[in-house]
Amino acid sequence: MALNTESVVADFNLLTGLSKSKESTKRNLSRMKGMFHDDLSFDELVNSESDPLVYEFYELDIPQTAGDILFGTSIVYPGKVGGEYFMTKGHFHTILETGEVYYCLSGDGYMLMENPEGDWKIEKFEPGQAVYVPPRYAHRSINIGEQPLVTFFAFRADAGHDYGTIETKGYRKLVIEKDGKPEVIDNPKWK
Amino acid sequence: MALNTESVVADFNLLTGLSKSKESTKRNLSRMKGMFHDDLSFDELVNSESDPLVYEFYELDIPQTAGDILFGTSIVYPGKVGGEYFMTKGHFHTILETGEVYYCLSGDGYMLMENPEGDWKIEKFEPGQAVYVPPRYAHRSINIGEQPLVTFFAFRADAGHDYGTIETKGYRKLVIEKDGKPEVIDNPKWK
Ligand SMILES: [Mn+2]
Ligand SMILES: [Mn+2]
Repeated sequence: MALNTESVVADFNLLTGLSKSKESTKRNLSRMKGMFHDDLSFDELVNSESDPLVYEFYELDIPQTAGDILFGTSIVYPGKVGGEYFMTKGHFHTILETGEVYYCLSGDGYMLMENPEGDWKIEKFEPGQAVYVPPRYAHRSINIGEQPLVTFFAFRADAGHDYGTIETKGYRKLVIEKDGKPEVIDNPKWK
Repeated sequence: MALNTESVVADFNLLTGLSKSKESTKRNLSRMKGMFHDDLSFDELVNSESDPLVYEFYELDIPQTAGDILFGTSIVYPGKVGGEYFMTKGHFHTILETGEVYYCLSGDGYMLMENPEGDWKIEKFEPGQAVYVPPRYAHRSINIGEQPLVTFFAFRADAGHDYGTIETKGYRKLVIEKDGKPEVIDNPKWK
């Protein structure tokens, strides 16, 4: 009895992270209103550069049970909004007690994490570096380089995404360029 | 409150799969007695070539809870035993209803899968190809190329490994070289 159940396979280019067989979900800058600290620069960039693509990622059609694993790539493009690097929205998992691994395929950046208790941490992404996001931590990828930041991710398929908490409260910390280098500062807009 | 909990990060070279910071688990051929179909060739190779390294992989120190994810790389070296390609032992998960993703970083090979009901499937590994092993399927990586087969894997941290079933019963299918090409055949030793 061969091959009688459907297999899930997917191609993700090791350099670009892009798939030839799957469709990505795209997040243009206009979809991130209020998430960067400098609203004036945000508005300027959304209007002047025809709403640049900030990041894209893949959501595969895998059963969302506690025994399954969802996986794919995330690609954060290079860019800045008023000195703040392009990044993903960031999210908690709806099932808070679930972690996630990110393995960096190319690019240069950070994984910024914080939990509901206010603990936070930041880890470096570079090609070949894996970062584990422990359970309870919101996570956001930040591209500090000139090339796309490409990561392969995997997490429990029933974990779910809570974007609302970050959209409402913001992150406690943010990463901006200062004197040509990334610096972690307190988010002035954090509630 | 920064960085007050320990982070888990790990480097895995994108080409070789090897880590400079972590120690791998190694499987030399002598540890796989009875798993290849040709016992004579097996004995010859174990003795004559000083017990070659067949594969190695990483087991990270992550809490083994249902919400955590274990991850690492697996490296299967090129080689054959009596026409049968070098491969991993293969295993079921102790919690049978848990899946696993493998993302191929380099090399050329297959993922061979079978479930307790006797369904089986085989998927191709090549650089950039992700293969999802659904819950209930035993899984074994097979290197059919001339270079190491390197994959990045991730699964639920409490899944556990059942190697015994495969060691006792064997796989229903095996992959051997025939006329210079890989061919899937019934395993004559399967019980
Ligand atoms: Mn996540
Ligand atoms: Mn496994």
